[in-house]
Amino acid sequence: MSLTLGELAGQIRGELQQGDPDCRIAAVATLQHAHAGDISFLANPGYRKYLQATQASAVILRQEDAADCPVAVIVSSNPYASYARAAALIAPAARVSSGVHATAALDAGCEVDESAWIGPHCIIEAGAVIHAGVQLAGGCFIGAGSVIGADSKLSANVVVCHDVTIGERVNILPGAVIGSDGFGLANEDGRWLNVPQLGSVRVGDDAEIGANTTIDRGALDDTVLEEGVRLDNQIQVAHNVHIGAHTAIAGCVGISGSARIGKYCMIGGGAGIAGHLEIADRVIITGMTMVTKSISKPGVYSSGVPAQENVAWNKTYARMRQLDKLARKVHALERSLAAATKHGDD
Amino acid sequence: MSLTLGELAGQIRGELQQGDPDCRIAAVATLQHAHAGDISFLANPGYRKYLQATQASAVILRQEDAADCPVAVIVSSNPYASYARAAALIAPAARVSSGVHATAALDAGCEVDESAWIGPHCIIEAGAVIHAGVQLAGGCFIGAGSVIGADSKLSANVVVCHDVTIGERVNILPGAVIGSDGFGLANEDGRWLNVPQLGSVRVGDDAEIGANTTIDRGALDDTVLEEGVRLDNQIQVAHNVHIGAHTAIAGCVGISGSARIGKYCMIGGGAGIAGHLEIADRVIITGMTMVTKSISKPGVYSSGVPAQENVAWNKTYARMRQLDKLARKVHALERSLAAATKHGDD
Amino acid sequence: MSLTLGELAGQIRGELQQGDPDCRIAAVATLQHAHAGDISFLANPGYRKYLQATQASAVILRQEDAADCPVAVIVSSNPYASYARAAALIAPAARVSSGVHATAALDAGCEVDESAWIGPHCIIEAGAVIHAGVQLAGGCFIGAGSVIGADSKLSANVVVCHDVTIGERVNILPGAVIGSDGFGLANEDGRWLNVPQLGSVRVGDDAEIGANTTIDRGALDDTVLEEGVRLDNQIQVAHNVHIGAHTAIAGCVGISGSARIGKYCMIGGGAGIAGHLEIADRVIITGMTMVTKSISKPGVYSSGVPAQENVAWNKTYARMRQLDKLARKVHALERSLAAATKHGDD
Repeated sequence: MSLTLGELAGQIRGELQQGDPDCRIAAVATLQHAHAGDISFLANPGYRKYLQATQASAVILRQEDAADCPVAVIVSSNPYASYARAAALIAPAARVSSGVHATAALDAGCEVDESAWIGPHCIIEAGAVIHAGVQLAGGCFIGAGSVIGADSKLSANVVVCHDVTIGERVNILPGAVIGSDGFGLANEDGRWLNVPQLGSVRVGDDAEIGANTTIDRGALDDTVLEEGVRLDNQIQVAHNVHIGAHTAIAGCVGISGSARIGKYCMIGGGAGIAGHLEIADRVIITGMTMVTKSISKPGVYSSGVPAQENVAWNKTYARMRQLDKLARKVHALERSLAAATKHGDD
Repeated sequence: MSLTLGELAGQIRGELQQGDPDCRIAAVATLQHAHAGDISFLANPGYRKYLQATQASAVILRQEDAADCPVAVIVSSNPYASYARAAALIAPAARVSSGVHATAALDAGCEVDESAWIGPHCIIEAGAVIHAGVQLAGGCFIGAGSVIGADSKLSANVVVCHDVTIGERVNILPGAVIGSDGFGLANEDGRWLNVPQLGSVRVGDDAEIGANTTIDRGALDDTVLEEGVRLDNQIQVAHNVHIGAHTAIAGCVGISGSARIGKYCMIGGGAGIAGHLEIADRVIITGMTMVTKSISKPGVYSSGVPAQENVAWNKTYARMRQLDKLARKVHALERSLAAATKHGDD
Repeated sequence: MSLTLGELAGQIRGELQQGDPDCRIAAVATLQHAHAGDISFLANPGYRKYLQATQASAVILRQEDAADCPVAVIVSSNPYASYARAAALIAPAARVSSGVHATAALDAGCEVDESAWIGPHCIIEAGAVIHAGVQLAGGCFIGAGSVIGADSKLSANVVVCHDVTIGERVNILPGAVIGSDGFGLANEDGRWLNVPQLGSVRVGDDAEIGANTTIDRGALDDTVLEEGVRLDNQIQVAHNVHIGAHTAIAGCVGISGSARIGKYCMIGGGAGIAGHLEIADRVIITGMTMVTKSISKPGVYSSGVPAQENVAWNKTYARMRQLDKLARKVHALERSLAAATKHGDD
């Protein structure tokens, strides 16, 4: 959709400070690849070097960068958010359909709102409820008794097991699995008995679940994602985990059973969270960190080890294995030196 | 299904020590959320604090906790296992169907037992054999020549590639992929040649394979999971891996090619096992550990680094990079002190 | 297919140095499991112990191993690559079909070459183009406007989102997801705004993408895999990543947004690559390493910590936490000793 700069500025929390309000904008682009008719943005200072030569018709940026911009300027205190809003307005909206594709397999006992779209080869079991405006792309499985809230969007081959509740405007990417049995095992004489997984999963409004991410159903109580949670791809959320509102978790994170994560947290890629612990609100975990204890204070926590050249790392690691010995040597040295000094002072 | 306490006790290896044997139990629940008619359990001492106030009609617990229980008591030497048995008896059993859904695509050359259920949009290729009581939820793909043993259960969108053998009572969760080509590459002049993956996968009886877990077929011989193996979600098992009976592996573990893992092992979430090594029976690997060498003795092995506050961790890591230098300094100090002491003693 | 040793040698860059050129070979096998009529190979010295007793009819090996071989010998400077070629010649080729299965759901606006095979329950949206010889196994989803290059092969339940370009002879394993939305989030007043993901994914010729691997579409520009890239299973490739030609990446690796990885790199299992960095050509990253900065020189880089017995590791880790203190103590010792020595010398 094309808009004028004047129209745009008003809808993206920005102020048009330089340029023609009637200039039409038809697309978004990066500073370095933009053409006339495009709007671009400058949020990360690392890209400031591209500002002078940009061919964009307008740029969204912070007040302090406005003077350096050779083209029209929309000033925003949060240029990346303003850009996100601009892109959502300008980019072609995803097509919204309604109806049920002829190849979908719907149990007679399910309920599908007439404004929803059920794509090819979807399966909807008995008792499932699909609310208004829901879009199921194709190959999705909605288990018995599950509820998909209004305007939620499931991409291809998403699996929602039985009795799961998905909120409104939830976005689920391809291959995600919500509500499969948790890893509940009781050992009896060396053999594993499965512990029936009788809870479910509740996903709050406006949450997003990445491609091939898995969220297990609870053992007795439910696994819960509160509103606005963002999960990237390939994440594992075990049974009875609780994730607070507006927490964002990057790819390949694993969260063990009954962990409770606060609101407004950010967890970096590849991190691991042990089970039965509690993480406070506004905690940041950096990438590949292992969290084994509860964290009660907001702040940044880490244990990921950055790479070295292999030869140097092998030396480091060999010394790490001897670290206890080294510390004992230092202690012995301290005593010897104290003794020697005392002796020397005699 | 509802049972009396007397009936239950006899079927869960427990002894009713307190309470009315005719009291009817209709559901299972946690100590803190139970109501009248529910049975609960106390296995993890961390939950003992909820015992006094529980509203459950009965609790499964160890002898030493019996005196503190305000309601009916079933004593068990393994309360979690007894609970698992109770839950399996009381919880509504998963529906078992039979027949072939009208939308399933079966090759004329496959064999499906009439007591099996083939759900919507399943695909069964030529030569595949589906034994009695098997349940395929929907969207499953069974490749040419594969065999699914009696009473196995495949959830939605499971892929079993060609010529794979799945045992009896195996449980496969949604999105799992069994038998895709291993990562076999030969380098020739800088380019990769694919090495044909001519082995297959054999999964033993009573195994369980988690959601979106992948198990590659062998290069020449087979990849093998012995009976009773438990794999959680998002695990990668490479070609020619061999996993011994009753070993349990938590989510996000990666196992490289030709690794051989013993029986009764437990591997924590996010661990990585290098290829071409052997792990003895009854080995425990803690979460996020990297195993690079064979382990020949039962025991617990670790290398996961627990999180610190970021500022502290950055100091730790900066010192780690200098660890070789630090060790050399300590060595130099030892020599200097020895020399100085000698000198001082002269 | 059965071939004579003479025919084989000529086609696998080998030289028949010992044995009857008319001997027929019908299968490939490992040294220890081969029978008469099989050809085997010796590439990894760890398997030399099986050479003397092999029942194979012929063995592919290096010149220096020829004298020890009791059966026919094909000498190759790269036995593993020669074996890969032999296996490809001898093993039954995967069946190539053509046509569209009756259950596939094709939009009227898609284009499918008549030599391609569209398996059961595939979905092809409007504007998608399927070129000659393409094989879609079953349950695949090809989004609107995507192009699948000639002779590419998609296994079961692969998802290719809209407007993605896949090259020729690309091999995509089950459950892989190509082109789902990247994890693009702008924070506004504590809430996450989705940044529209308007780029796409381009996969070069002869690439391979493993089972349940996910590759996100770009935010504005495209995510790119150059020709011959090999990705194993369960890998996460974030938006705007660029992977150079002939780079091979093992399972469970996570690559963050806008990382740029060179050509001919090898990345070990479970490694993590941070975003917005650049890795040179011919870099090797060992397993479970975390790369947080650009790497400008070819070489081997590591940070994975190998396992110890848990008791030893706990000591190591306790000392690691005190490493800064320990280093300060050593520094203090150095000063004290210098002072004491000086004093002693007075």
